[in-house]
Amino acid sequence: MERTLIADLQKHTGKEVSVSGWIDVRRDHGKLIFLVLRDRSGSVQSVVLPNHADALATAQTLRPEWVVTLTGTVGARPEKMVNADEPNGNIELEATSITVLSPAQELPFASDAELNLDTLLDYRPLTLRRERERAIFAVQAGLSQAYRNSLLRQDFTEFQAPALVGSDAEGGAEVFRVEYFNGHTANLATSPQFYKQILTGVYERAFTIARIFRAEKSATTRHISELTQMDFEMAFIKDERDVLAVLETVVRDISTEMKEGYAHHFTTCGAELPLLPSKPFPILTLREVQKIIGVPEEPDLEPAHERAICEWAKKEHGSDFVFVTKFPTAKRAFYTYEDPSEAPYSRGFDLLFRGLEILSGAQRIHSYDDLVAKIESRGMDPKNFSFYLQAFKYGMPPHGGCSIGLERLTKQMLGLENVKEATLFPRDINRIDTLLSSNKPDNDKNNSDQ
Amino acid sequence: MERTLIADLQKHTGKEVSVSGWIDVRRDHGKLIFLVLRDRSGSVQSVVLPNHADALATAQTLRPEWVVTLTGTVGARPEKMVNADEPNGNIELEATSITVLSPAQELPFASDAELNLDTLLDYRPLTLRRERERAIFAVQAGLSQAYRNSLLRQDFTEFQAPALVGSDAEGGAEVFRVEYFNGHTANLATSPQFYKQILTGVYERAFTIARIFRAEKSATTRHISELTQMDFEMAFIKDERDVLAVLETVVRDISTEMKEGYAHHFTTCGAELPLLPSKPFPILTLREVQKIIGVPEEPDLEPAHERAICEWAKKEHGSDFVFVTKFPTAKRAFYTYEDPSEAPYSRGFDLLFRGLEILSGAQRIHSYDDLVAKIESRGMDPKNFSFYLQAFKYGMPPHGGCSIGLERLTKQMLGLENVKEATLFPRDINRIDTLLSSNKPDNDKNNSDQ
Repeated sequence: MERTLIADLQKHTGKEVSVSGWIDVRRDHGKLIFLVLRDRSGSVQSVVLPNHADALATAQTLRPEWVVTLTGTVGARPEKMVNADEPNGNIELEATSITVLSPAQELPFASDAELNLDTLLDYRPLTLRRERERAIFAVQAGLSQAYRNSLLRQDFTEFQAPALVGSDAEGGAEVFRVEYFNGHTANLATSPQFYKQILTGVYERAFTIARIFRAEKSATTRHISELTQMDFEMAFIKDERDVLAVLETVVRDISTEMKEGYAHHFTTCGAELPLLPSKPFPILTLREVQKIIGVPEEPDLEPAHERAICEWAKKEHGSDFVFVTKFPTAKRAFYTYEDPSEAPYSRGFDLLFRGLEILSGAQRIHSYDDLVAKIESRGMDPKNFSFYLQAFKYGMPPHGGCSIGLERLTKQMLGLENVKEATLFPRDINRIDTLLSSNKPDNDKNNSDQ
Repeated sequence: MERTLIADLQKHTGKEVSVSGWIDVRRDHGKLIFLVLRDRSGSVQSVVLPNHADALATAQTLRPEWVVTLTGTVGARPEKMVNADEPNGNIELEATSITVLSPAQELPFASDAELNLDTLLDYRPLTLRRERERAIFAVQAGLSQAYRNSLLRQDFTEFQAPALVGSDAEGGAEVFRVEYFNGHTANLATSPQFYKQILTGVYERAFTIARIFRAEKSATTRHISELTQMDFEMAFIKDERDVLAVLETVVRDISTEMKEGYAHHFTTCGAELPLLPSKPFPILTLREVQKIIGVPEEPDLEPAHERAICEWAKKEHGSDFVFVTKFPTAKRAFYTYEDPSEAPYSRGFDLLFRGLEILSGAQRIHSYDDLVAKIESRGMDPKNFSFYLQAFKYGMPPHGGCSIGLERLTKQMLGLENVKEATLFPRDINRIDTLLSSNKPDNDKNNSDQ
């Protein structure tokens, strides 16, 4: 019999159906057993009555996470058992036969137990099945897709950025090293920036959703060693305002998509949809921000300052988002374009969202000579940038772009406490799937016997 | 003045416009100069006449790849200069002013010079701007997007697979090692397989477009060290035929998208659109293939066999695609499901396309006990798979899936000779952007002075 998805059961009232999924809950009332079955589309209550002896016998063996196929008839629930708050709260499936597809071992904790972060991650293959975790990563998939679709509509070309890179030209300490061929050392990319700019010289408007890596020896609520970075870059801009305009469209498109397709997941996570102003997002220079929140002029914003200006933007502009521009050139990456009329301030910007910087961007230097001079002025060797510099040597238009971490965006959208909650399989100083202390090579017998 | 895209110029005949882009060609006729300007949307011929002395003086300095803004009037070309084969072959832009946005240095070779592969890659930031290269990677973006959209329509959830993995549980020799924190060694993922199966236990239908890494010491037309793998996996299947049905829909959707949106790029590359049968794709067992092409029963197909059966499928079924199923279990990955009625043959399959295997897949083992037994029977230690095995310990439905390399698919779609031509920034035993011999660390003065 053809499988029916649980979300479609309402259309089959009074009919016989076959549904498949995982047992969420089993309540044994002796003569009858209630089961809650979950599939990718939703969940439904099923009742197994004594007149179906085989089904009842099988139902007695079932436990949470067993995988089964139930055959039965979709009926209206007795009136006193109707639950108007649940999608299938008005129906139940009277099961006449049950087939076990896969048993499950006893769970290490109850399905609804409150778990600390380490337990949540230790049992990721199991805990991802929780309603909240399924909601988080459904939202994450929606965020990346909305980002992509918005840029495709705005005539951008997607490309695949490499994760393995050659010399660590910028000389960052926080780079993972890879044993490459024949004694060579490669590195893991910390950003797709150079490739994105090269592609901007090809397609004018380019974006990538890339894996990047940060060997930061920090274990905070904001640090992960591998993350998903969404980057776009666009050519033929007048200044950074052109980038902000595209970016604002992206953020509004993402927010619309969340409202239209993911609101129920926000509810599951106890989160609110982003608040968008009817007018354009507020754009403030760093100095304007510091004046508004009453702090001295400094080269960057402290976390408390980010929170304060976001509160102001929410109150004054009805906006969860605020752009901050004109950061000092010296505090930004070497390829940042200095605003000629506002030196030593740059055309770099951040996007703050609910008290946190979630995105950085800038107009970039497009002149080959200026870029070489800037590399030298920062004490680096242009020879190490020769591949990247080709894009500029052979004619690069004025351009700019920005990058946003998908996990941090997910965290902030859903009001999660720790970015690891918004990372499917977080890697950090202590963990790659399992804790590193128990993750020794398998020729280390002492450890593999633990 | 607002920029007009070159593709939109036909709508502006007789009007003044401003266009921006790169100089493709400059032909100096002394009293007048012809320029071909290229932007992301197309190219157009411009003429600079002597009555615009400033523009003519600037035009005399222009060289290929200079970035400019031209202002002028869109006019019909003189009849004898109309080129009906070009999109803008009926118009030209009479330039009245020219602004140089970025000069370019002299090119190392002519824009239309035939280049060997090493030169093509040495100058990738420049050579990607060639019409053929732009077409290849526009097609590649389209392929990945069509793959994604087809699966989204078929109710799959996208996820981000990690590139950094812990212990190399399968013990492959061809794995890159990463210096992780505190003396730990991590590895670069050779496949998102385990994560994809874990997600199948969560969302039933999951896919990822992931970066994977292969430390193969081979320099052939098929080898690259980092590639883009497109993987999907689906639960509640009866057997591998359910996977083939979804896959065939994906391949047909991709082919339709290529036909509708990318045919001009196929023309640029001298490639033909894929040939699809009006009936379903042929599905043959390995043994049937060997019988048809008249070779002895062996555990796998040789490259010549792949070509022969593809010729047969094209001739007999009008299909560039053919499925081959029931490979011997012993020749496939440990998690492959053996067909109970056809042991020692498995429910593993390949998809061949124009003479080459481009995709592998299978129904997978879903029983925890069977999977543990299989790991042990292959001489591996289930302890090293403990994280992955959780998915099975806690209830996994029957499932299967497949994976396809985006670069190989691009190569085969466009009839390219070498997969590196279909890789934006190919890494191999000799190269990460630049050739490795010249890519030494910058504290190696002898080399950095080269």
